[in-house]
Amino acid sequence: MNEQATYSGLRSFLQLPAKLDNGGTPDVTLVGIPFDLGTTNRPGCRFGPAGIRDASLMLIDGDHPEMRVNPMDGLSCIDSGDLDVACGYLDQSLELIEKQVSKIDSHLVAMGGDHTVTLPILRGRAERNGKGLSLVHIDAHVDTWPDTFGGPVGHGTPFHYAAQEGLIDPMRSIQIGIRSPVDNDVMDYTRDELGFTVITAEDVHTGGVDVVVEAIKKAVGDNAAYLTFDIDGIDPSQAPGTGTPEVGGIFTWQALAIMKKLGSLNWVGMDMVEVAPAYDHAQITSLAAATFIWTYLCMLAVRKDK
Amino acid sequence: MNEQATYSGLRSFLQLPAKLDNGGTPDVTLVGIPFDLGTTNRPGCRFGPAGIRDASLMLIDGDHPEMRVNPMDGLSCIDSGDLDVACGYLDQSLELIEKQVSKIDSHLVAMGGDHTVTLPILRGRAERNGKGLSLVHIDAHVDTWPDTFGGPVGHGTPFHYAAQEGLIDPMRSIQIGIRSPVDNDVMDYTRDELGFTVITAEDVHTGGVDVVVEAIKKAVGDNAAYLTFDIDGIDPSQAPGTGTPEVGGIFTWQALAIMKKLGSLNWVGMDMVEVAPAYDHAQITSLAAATFIWTYLCMLAVRKDK
Amino acid sequence: MNEQATYSGLRSFLQLPAKLDNGGTPDVTLVGIPFDLGTTNRPGCRFGPAGIRDASLMLIDGDHPEMRVNPMDGLSCIDSGDLDVACGYLDQSLELIEKQVSKIDSHLVAMGGDHTVTLPILRGRAERNGKGLSLVHIDAHVDTWPDTFGGPVGHGTPFHYAAQEGLIDPMRSIQIGIRSPVDNDVMDYTRDELGFTVITAEDVHTGGVDVVVEAIKKAVGDNAAYLTFDIDGIDPSQAPGTGTPEVGGIFTWQALAIMKKLGSLNWVGMDMVEVAPAYDHAQITSLAAATFIWTYLCMLAVRKDK
Amino acid sequence: MNEQATYSGLRSFLQLPAKLDNGGTPDVTLVGIPFDLGTTNRPGCRFGPAGIRDASLMLIDGDHPEMRVNPMDGLSCIDSGDLDVACGYLDQSLELIEKQVSKIDSHLVAMGGDHTVTLPILRGRAERNGKGLSLVHIDAHVDTWPDTFGGPVGHGTPFHYAAQEGLIDPMRSIQIGIRSPVDNDVMDYTRDELGFTVITAEDVHTGGVDVVVEAIKKAVGDNAAYLTFDIDGIDPSQAPGTGTPEVGGIFTWQALAIMKKLGSLNWVGMDMVEVAPAYDHAQITSLAAATFIWTYLCMLAVRKDK
Amino acid sequence: MNEQATYSGLRSFLQLPAKLDNGGTPDVTLVGIPFDLGTTNRPGCRFGPAGIRDASLMLIDGDHPEMRVNPMDGLSCIDSGDLDVACGYLDQSLELIEKQVSKIDSHLVAMGGDHTVTLPILRGRAERNGKGLSLVHIDAHVDTWPDTFGGPVGHGTPFHYAAQEGLIDPMRSIQIGIRSPVDNDVMDYTRDELGFTVITAEDVHTGGVDVVVEAIKKAVGDNAAYLTFDIDGIDPSQAPGTGTPEVGGIFTWQALAIMKKLGSLNWVGMDMVEVAPAYDHAQITSLAAATFIWTYLCMLAVRKDK
Amino acid sequence: MNEQATYSGLRSFLQLPAKLDNGGTPDVTLVGIPFDLGTTNRPGCRFGPAGIRDASLMLIDGDHPEMRVNPMDGLSCIDSGDLDVACGYLDQSLELIEKQVSKIDSHLVAMGGDHTVTLPILRGRAERNGKGLSLVHIDAHVDTWPDTFGGPVGHGTPFHYAAQEGLIDPMRSIQIGIRSPVDNDVMDYTRDELGFTVITAEDVHTGGVDVVVEAIKKAVGDNAAYLTFDIDGIDPSQAPGTGTPEVGGIFTWQALAIMKKLGSLNWVGMDMVEVAPAYDHAQITSLAAATFIWTYLCMLAVRKDK
Repeated sequence: MNEQATYSGLRSFLQLPAKLDNGGTPDVTLVGIPFDLGTTNRPGCRFGPAGIRDASLMLIDGDHPEMRVNPMDGLSCIDSGDLDVACGYLDQSLELIEKQVSKIDSHLVAMGGDHTVTLPILRGRAERNGKGLSLVHIDAHVDTWPDTFGGPVGHGTPFHYAAQEGLIDPMRSIQIGIRSPVDNDVMDYTRDELGFTVITAEDVHTGGVDVVVEAIKKAVGDNAAYLTFDIDGIDPSQAPGTGTPEVGGIFTWQALAIMKKLGSLNWVGMDMVEVAPAYDHAQITSLAAATFIWTYLCMLAVRKDK
Repeated sequence: MNEQATYSGLRSFLQLPAKLDNGGTPDVTLVGIPFDLGTTNRPGCRFGPAGIRDASLMLIDGDHPEMRVNPMDGLSCIDSGDLDVACGYLDQSLELIEKQVSKIDSHLVAMGGDHTVTLPILRGRAERNGKGLSLVHIDAHVDTWPDTFGGPVGHGTPFHYAAQEGLIDPMRSIQIGIRSPVDNDVMDYTRDELGFTVITAEDVHTGGVDVVVEAIKKAVGDNAAYLTFDIDGIDPSQAPGTGTPEVGGIFTWQALAIMKKLGSLNWVGMDMVEVAPAYDHAQITSLAAATFIWTYLCMLAVRKDK
Repeated sequence: MNEQATYSGLRSFLQLPAKLDNGGTPDVTLVGIPFDLGTTNRPGCRFGPAGIRDASLMLIDGDHPEMRVNPMDGLSCIDSGDLDVACGYLDQSLELIEKQVSKIDSHLVAMGGDHTVTLPILRGRAERNGKGLSLVHIDAHVDTWPDTFGGPVGHGTPFHYAAQEGLIDPMRSIQIGIRSPVDNDVMDYTRDELGFTVITAEDVHTGGVDVVVEAIKKAVGDNAAYLTFDIDGIDPSQAPGTGTPEVGGIFTWQALAIMKKLGSLNWVGMDMVEVAPAYDHAQITSLAAATFIWTYLCMLAVRKDK
Repeated sequence: MNEQATYSGLRSFLQLPAKLDNGGTPDVTLVGIPFDLGTTNRPGCRFGPAGIRDASLMLIDGDHPEMRVNPMDGLSCIDSGDLDVACGYLDQSLELIEKQVSKIDSHLVAMGGDHTVTLPILRGRAERNGKGLSLVHIDAHVDTWPDTFGGPVGHGTPFHYAAQEGLIDPMRSIQIGIRSPVDNDVMDYTRDELGFTVITAEDVHTGGVDVVVEAIKKAVGDNAAYLTFDIDGIDPSQAPGTGTPEVGGIFTWQALAIMKKLGSLNWVGMDMVEVAPAYDHAQITSLAAATFIWTYLCMLAVRKDK
Repeated sequence: MNEQATYSGLRSFLQLPAKLDNGGTPDVTLVGIPFDLGTTNRPGCRFGPAGIRDASLMLIDGDHPEMRVNPMDGLSCIDSGDLDVACGYLDQSLELIEKQVSKIDSHLVAMGGDHTVTLPILRGRAERNGKGLSLVHIDAHVDTWPDTFGGPVGHGTPFHYAAQEGLIDPMRSIQIGIRSPVDNDVMDYTRDELGFTVITAEDVHTGGVDVVVEAIKKAVGDNAAYLTFDIDGIDPSQAPGTGTPEVGGIFTWQALAIMKKLGSLNWVGMDMVEVAPAYDHAQITSLAAATFIWTYLCMLAVRKDK
Repeated sequence: MNEQATYSGLRSFLQLPAKLDNGGTPDVTLVGIPFDLGTTNRPGCRFGPAGIRDASLMLIDGDHPEMRVNPMDGLSCIDSGDLDVACGYLDQSLELIEKQVSKIDSHLVAMGGDHTVTLPILRGRAERNGKGLSLVHIDAHVDTWPDTFGGPVGHGTPFHYAAQEGLIDPMRSIQIGIRSPVDNDVMDYTRDELGFTVITAEDVHTGGVDVVVEAIKKAVGDNAAYLTFDIDGIDPSQAPGTGTPEVGGIFTWQALAIMKKLGSLNWVGMDMVEVAPAYDHAQITSLAAATFIWTYLCMLAVRKDK
């Protein structure tokens, strides 16, 4: 009569240790990136890692009801804490992030932070993961703007640069949940020039999850795949805790149903970005984000299981 | 009896000017109506115009991703601020509203305020728009009660009076999202006696948006159409910021998917009512309301484009 | 011009009296059970009865729009207030609850309180309702854990004990909305050993409500049926006010659409549990819970009507 | 082990009955007045009575630590529920309130509602209490404006009319906590023409409570005294749940320390107004209001005790 | 340009380690006790340790501006995480807590949890600290009730038992901030029979902090002293995040001014209880609690410094 | 690099116009500076100008009750909207701010934004106001850190640079409300090396406002004075809406009582910084900030009056 309940204990993701007891290299390293200088509307996702870790405690106990596995059994995982960032300085922060992620010697799952951080992650991991990755990109926004309110870099620009630098291969990449206002020329650039497959939120609602799963598999094939999940891809009713919400979004059940069918993809990493707890209530946004990461880890665990 | 109260005044929808620079008549005039004396449960939609204007700033930048147009390019619009109302006095406020809207010399989009305001809008615009309008009415409630908790006029009665005065033609009108408890005789009056087509929220969920679009087109035909959008038509999870919520509502993606297919209707005006920011969180209700207005303006812009 | 509006008056469920005026036995007795010692994560559902009663005032006026009846017309109902519980003491509270419900001489609807309370309700009502009931169980969790964080009894264990004691017949019972992490052996025990029909939340979304209705009818048949509705079966966006939320839940419209088609079942009682107002906002969770109870009462009223 | 805890039970003020068991006339009758049509900024105090009743449950148990008495022992009190008001109609509501309070045959304590309601209370009780009452008026605002945003009657005007009608005697009345912006001529009218003693919030802070107590006693003498307590007299940090907050207010400890020394005054009634729960958090405003009423009742109980 | 900002990192109190690097015994051990089964009104202080730890990050950087020392320099401290408690079972939890604290081999600072936990702490530490301690007790409530809503043990009873068992010496103990309703006989028992010095909140406001400091020093003398700080001693405006708030409380500046002058006392331990983050806003309650603990540690550090 | 972000733009302080009707130079120009890249803990004061403007509407009506003047009568004021900042880029933003404020040809009142902005304001206004200003600095923090978490510039560093550049004269400057943890050497640098007079929050509480007023007058003399008001100088209970709160702060009534006695100082400008509405509730922080600006304008109006 003395097991620790879910509301107990110091807080890391799923109460994972910061290092393996045996001193070895883990299968997966989770890191937080408390950075939000790239936000163009409501800031606060610097507290995203803290929020996601807190909410993850609700998920500690039990197996995925359909994949019938949990990350604790199948994988050796650590939560190594937060990366250093340069308070107030965007460019220096991106450099710091790139440098730190380049040194992590395992599969990486990052908790943002705003979407700007995906750029230094892709840069810092290119040597390990290769270039020309397939991006599986869940978001309300295309994030391929070539600039942002007059500045060069922000949370709307990462995939413009990633594409230009060859870090991702838009022709084998896919965006899901897109619905924000967007200049016609940016949309044309994204879809026609770069070659992204773009699935709108309405497409998900009216087409159904199986169609989306097929589209993802078709776009990605057997290329190395990176999942970048902007929580604002989810509807604001289920993810209010974010900076640039757009109504009409996809639902958590849809994202979960899609993810669990993508276990066969060749995943090389994931990030979960734009969770801003100050705008959340009852932790529902953080819980959604934690559940998406947990589901991703279950996917990896199933794969390792085999 | 018409000084502006402290909750009134301009923030400006989409940062629109209060007047055109060239002094000309705009295509569209937006006004706020900070009035909530007609509410029968939670008040506070006097702050609706302020909330919607604030949230609209998130939508300034970019084109509608499918209509490929934005209100700034296609239309000359102004936000002329808030109408005067008589603090504390319902009847006098309705008279003031009617008088003011009758003088606006362009297409009118009103931001409520509670649903009572649609009655003086329809009265004040009848000379310009004609009578016997087709009402496209999104709401959880039929709003055709002949009285309200013993009083004659309130936010549940506007379409009783509008029908009796011939301002609308219920036989060519349609209600979407209906689901509240309602006396059987009021429902019979609405559907059988007046002749409204009534589509419940469950109908939208199980029938799908295309069926709804067809029903609207069938009911309205080529008659002059007025869109009255009560935010409580939307589910409380997506629109908590309102006074008389009803669970089981329609989703924002459905409303948006329906609206964008109605560009061919002969629109003569719109109102967006019952947004009560005190019950909102993370601005999601106000953002939904702003997005519906923005989508309506995009519809007008597309039409003008041709 | 003096009817009381919905925001007025002392608060019982639907403003029901605590006793019938004629001193007789009512058709239905509602009670609150302000108990949350069995919660394993966020507590606070001791305020569930207060929250549900407050929100129920929004539903006082009118008939169910499709069943065309309301509880006031069709049934004699009372809200007899809250049961006594033993502050701080779980076992003694369960005994107190069992004893009190055993003495209620009418159909019983209980407002929890956490899900632990269903066990003493089933025990205390067994003499009146018989054993081997069919459980219609809406929930994110199976609640058949044989223990809880090392302790014997909590809000995750009621149906383990109810099944072992023969109070319910799992072979003729059904769980709807299930989706939480769960140990594989608990899931196997629930589905394979005990024999529950388990319908996941994703099943509801992809299969549709009619399939669920058929599954319920098939599982229950003409056996005496008890509805136990854990509000966390509903998605956290629509029911944030609860202690152990799980994303990806079913929607209120689905639960309502299912319930209204189950009027032919042989209902012997209902409980609505796990509403924790401290985590709610704009009363949407409490309103959902109140609406489910109201819909259940409408079902009973329709039946009595015949 | 079965006493009801403070979070349990149907909610009236201090769980008082609606009628005495013996059918007799109580010493004190509490009523709610769910009216907020007179508000000029944030509405919502129609829910004031509900909020105050809920919070009062925290005070059920025990004696006043210094007066060493509680209302339950010393007085026969009832909470007879809410008065009828006319939804949406200010003038008719005031008439209804006046008529109803005139019929209450005991000491009256009213829970507002906005400050407009004090006018019909004073009118309706004049026959019982006499005219020319001494007003002990705690508030941030003088509430003697001769009109309100162009209209004749609102929550800023009650004491203009009460003075003009002779219901109160400003020369023997006192205002405490005053600090809002106010037109110079309204201030001159209040202080110089009508003759109110005006004590600003800063006076209370720098002068201390004993000076205030003396000033009240000096102003009132042995005249019949009526306490009208606008919760916005208290600082917004301690009473955020109100419609027209003003910073720099008095503290709850000061109001309590003042009140408990006023037991020797000839009290004839009290109201507690402007509590708007939608702007409250953690019930602190409602709890403050309930505590002020409870303290007033303790004063009456002490007096009766002798 | 890469130091970690205050919003970064895994969360322990002040980011303290769980063990000293050198494996030695620390000067001070902090523990969390996530227990709230003893609450009689609003629960939720099981999340108190998490809330306090989060807020403590704001205090990491810098020395106390007047004591000119910080806990990091002066003391070796660890945060060893949360104690085990028995989910749902009060008696067993108290036994578990007592057993665990008895084994901690350093000065102990506990973060509750509700006030019930002080009893097992005093029991478990009696061997180390001796019996007959002087209690310095900041609280709105005397917490010497001999029972609680009919049950034997709860958060209102710890000092009844502690006094009866000789763990504390009420004659050399003092209570500060007292103001709740309390039965006259409980107050008489506390003050007259047991012999506590009782200082009300109003005493602090009108007497000033120096008088309180003198009273504490006089009561305690050179006896071993234990600080038990119930956050509801502080005014609800500054500590809304708690379960049984009482208006009219003392202010944080007063508590801090008092504490910093008590460095000469013979402190043997401290607890900080009743922080319920679900009722907090903007972390102000948790920050207050963290600051009180930080100030206590600074007091210890100053003492060690000498 | 100067497009306006979505959180920027005009609501208008006190509904002031953006330009004078007569095209002339106003007495006072208000500007917003929606910048928060310098925050080291909770961001969000980019919405400070919006929040303050919204709350200012509560103050439109009436004269200061003691100064007996209002800004509308006494002064010609405009609210010229928000300055451009460089989204995401700290250094460039400071340059933009400096350039813009240097061009404003009237008395300037700035609404931040974080405290970093005072540095470019002082720089940009030095030509107009002279150097060696007396700083009247209300704050919880000294803001003279020579660096910030490893970076050179942030909201804790403005007065280090301002002093080093001679923009202010610390020997004739004063800090009020100071109480945060601070490295001993930074405190020594501030007080002993630079020469600031430092008045702690506790000093204000125990010394009283008159002593503070005298200290300010003594420090400043007849030197040109600049008021920089960090809202976190105020206690978190009255100003929760800020990023780096510290408990034990001064109260709004104290700040107001101090300000109104400083009309004789030679004021050359003011800023109000660190208001973060996402952490506010019921607008109390924004209202406090707006009231401080309003009081400052009243001071100017009184002076002009003469």
